[in-house]
Order: sequence, then C-alpha cells, then structure tokens
Amino acid sequence: MSDERSGADAETDPSGSPTPESAQGRFDDEISTALRALLHQLEPGARLPNERELAEELGVSRNALRDRVRLLESVGVLARRQGSGTYLEKTFNPDGLVFAMDLLVAMGQLKHSDLQSVRVGLERQAAIQAASGGSKPELIAEMRSAVEALGEKYDTPEMVREDVRFHRALIRAADNPALAFFADALRGVLERATEMGTVNWREQRIGKHLLVAVHADIIDAVEAQDPEAASHAVDEHFSLHERVVRGKFGFGA
Amino acid sequence: MSDERSGADAETDPSGSPTPESAQGRFDDEISTALRALLHQLEPGARLPNERELAEELGVSRNALRDRVRLLESVGVLARRQGSGTYLEKTFNPDGLVFAMDLLVAMGQLKHSDLQSVRVGLERQAAIQAASGGSKPELIAEMRSAVEALGEKYDTPEMVREDVRFHRALIRAADNPALAFFADALRGVLERATEMGTVNWREQRIGKHLLVAVHADIIDAVEAQDPEAASHAVDEHFSLHERVVRGKFGFGA
Repeated sequence: MSDERSGADAETDPSGSPTPESAQGRFDDEISTALRALLHQLEPGARLPNERELAEELGVSRNALRDRVRLLESVGVLARRQGSGTYLEKTFNPDGLVFAMDLLVAMGQLKHSDLQSVRVGLERQAAIQAASGGSKPELIAEMRSAVEALGEKYDTPEMVREDVRFHRALIRAADNPALAFFADALRGVLERATEMGTVNWREQRIGKHLLVAVHADIIDAVEAQDPEAASHAVDEHFSLHERVVRGKFGFGA
Repeated sequence: MSDERSGADAETDPSGSPTPESAQGRFDDEISTALRALLHQLEPGARLPNERELAEELGVSRNALRDRVRLLESVGVLARRQGSGTYLEKTFNPDGLVFAMDLLVAMGQLKHSDLQSVRVGLERQAAIQAASGGSKPELIAEMRSAVEALGEKYDTPEMVREDVRFHRALIRAADNPALAFFADALRGVLERATEMGTVNWREQRIGKHLLVAVHADIIDAVEAQDPEAASHAVDEHFSLHERVVRGKFGFGA
C-alpha cells in the first residue's frame, strides 16, 4: 500500500492542508462501484452476504472489501452484529468522525478555534434554512422552552444541557439530515470545550440577560421567516459565545 | 453488538435525523481513551506495535482495537502499508467520508440539495474568515487567475477545473484545516453533480459575464478584508449557481 501513501503525500499542499485534486481519491475505484451497485439493490435491515461470498460476488479481494465495510460501519451505513453478520442500516452517524477529530485535537493537529469556525458556518446556514423553509411551530416551541430554562438555571451542566437542546432544535428546524450530521459531529468534538463554567452566572445579571437575548433573537428570526435576520442573530450569538469562552465577559465588572 | 445497535436506534429521533444525545456515542469508551493516550506519545511517521502487542498493551480486545484502527485509517490519521505495519500519519483526509456520503446519495438517503446547503454554509464561513484574517496576496492572485481563465474558457470540463481552482484557493485563504477538510468532503460528493454543462456558455454572453462577476466580487471582498461583503458575495455566487443547475438561466433568451 506504499503507492497509496505516496498518493496521499502528493495530495497534501505546502500549507499542510489536505487538498486533494479529487476528493473521491483513494476510495474511487471499481471496489466502491461494485459495492455501491450491490447496496443500492438492498433494503434497510437486509443482511449482507458473508465476506467470502461478497468478495467473490464483487470480484474483489477480501482485504480491500473489509476496509470498505469497516469504513461504512464507522459512519452507520452498515452495522455488524456479533455472530450474526453485517446489516445494511442506511443511516449516517457522526460518532466515528467525532472520535477521529477528537484524537486529532488531542494530538495537536486540529484546533478548537478552527472547529468552532466550522460550527459557526453550519449553524448560520441552519438558521438561514430554518428561516426559509416554512414555520415549524413544535420546534419553535422547543427552542423557546430551552431558552426559558436557560434563563432560569445557573448550574453550568444544566445550562449546557438547555443550550444543547436549543441548538438541536434549531438544526432540526433546518430539516437537512446532512447539515444535522455535520453539526452533530462538530458539537460532539466541541462539547468538552464549552466553558460556560468560567462565568459565575449569578453575578453576571447583564451577561445572563444577553445570553438569553441572543438565543431569543434567533428564534424570533426563524419564526418570522427572515433568513437575513437569522444569519445576523447567529453571528451575534457566537460573538457573545466567544467572549464568554475567552473570559472577556466583564459586564458590570 | 446487538446492544450497540439498539443504542443507535434510540439515538434516532422521529424526524429520521441522527441526533445523538452525546455525539461521542459508541466510540467514547476506555478503548478510545487508551488509544488516544498511546498515539499522543508518538511522532508522525512512527510505526504502531502490531495488533496483538497493541491489544495487550492497551488491555483491550483485538476486534475492538481493529475497528478503531480501520476507522482512523479511513480518515488518514493512520496508514497501513502492506507487509510493513500501521503508521501514524496525523493527517485528516476526507476520502473515506466522501465514499460514504456518495453511497448514501446513490441509495437515496442523502440529497444533493441538502449537501449543497452544507457547502454554502462552509464556503460562506471560509470567505468571512478569509476576509478577516489578513491579506494573502498569493492566494488572491491564484483566485484572480482562475476567474480570468474561467471567463476565457467555454469547454465545460475546463470551466469546472478553473472553478475548482478558485474555490480551493478561497478555502486555503481561510487558513483553517478543519474547514478545508469539510469543504473538500462536500466538494468531493458534489463534483459529479456540477452541471455547468447544461448551459451553452457561448450563447450565454450575459450569463458568462455574471459568472465571472460573482466570483470577482468574492475576491474583491476578501482583498478588501470586508467579511460582510464576502458573505454577501458568496450568497450571490450560490444563488447564480442554483439557477445554472436548475436550468433557469435564461438571460437574453
């Protein structure tokens, strides 16, 4: 597989970012094509032929096949059940990606601030889409309930829980499973870095008021179906968030 | 592993979107913690102990370990070389994710329009960050060169190539490897869906002029370090893009 490796090297530009000419890259081959054609015919819940049969059916090596199957397991497209076989799930679960990003953060290869920037881009887009796609009264109600609770609580884990509840409802209001996948992945990595706890919220009455206000502004914009206001409100939200995380939250101090 | 499966079911909300309570989910366990601690100590290029040794060292089962190693291979953190072993690469490559998303699109579980929306959110954020992080003359020059060539070419594959060159430079100008990873992943899946070819650009002189203009506006905003204008220019760009893809591009017709 040393040829694959030199290929990967060639795809890395001098800035150090992975910028392949074609992002399909090393998985864009006849094995993928054959596997895609097979899975396309199966219904969710169907059991795949065992590895040896599948490799023969597709005319590929068992090792190569196993790599693809493991990859698809890691994102939830396939599920292996011990002693039973591998099943088609057709879901899309960010756990594997979160695990990998978390590791890269731990090794110093990814920065929280860079991931946070991606999160801002995704949430802004979610708010714009939620404010454009028709009203969703249940999700508006869920967001209002979360923000109300956020305003009443002072214990950090409880506040984080309400905050997460708000953002999950916002993402669901965008009605976009792809956006939900990436937003969940980012939230998964960044959750540990949430530092609402560096603020003593009981002493920061103006800060707490602002915190509730920036969330309420997002809800109002989504409810009014005003994408521009929604985009602006998300940026205000993250601007406040950044001040909180950086400890530059000195209202009334 | 049937318990893992029921866990995954519980994490799927009625809307069908994957919305786990904690996105760390099924990989957030002692195996990951042990593996993270081990990899943290190694330098890029280091060879990992073989599977049996590693499983013993970490005190985990070989099967469980193999799943994590395969997962990390799929995103480029580890690289396996036939007959030699597994090496720490510490890179972050979207190929595996592109393969999985591509399959979900083929199976009808992900829509191109949803992925396109994620791409818009990421590119808008890239433009905002590029317009906030200080000027990058070489990347501005690269973007201008790509757009100039885009204006001069009428052959679809050549136009797509210049378009990709422009967007890669924009993403690099944001100087954010996490954003680059996700943008590359989205571009990889959406590349096949790019439909510049549905337009006869020779006959669409106004359209061609607009196409060049929306790209030039992004460059101008980044060069002027004006994040708001950059954000607006990206939205104008994708609004035109959508009209092109939907074939509603009837200037002068």
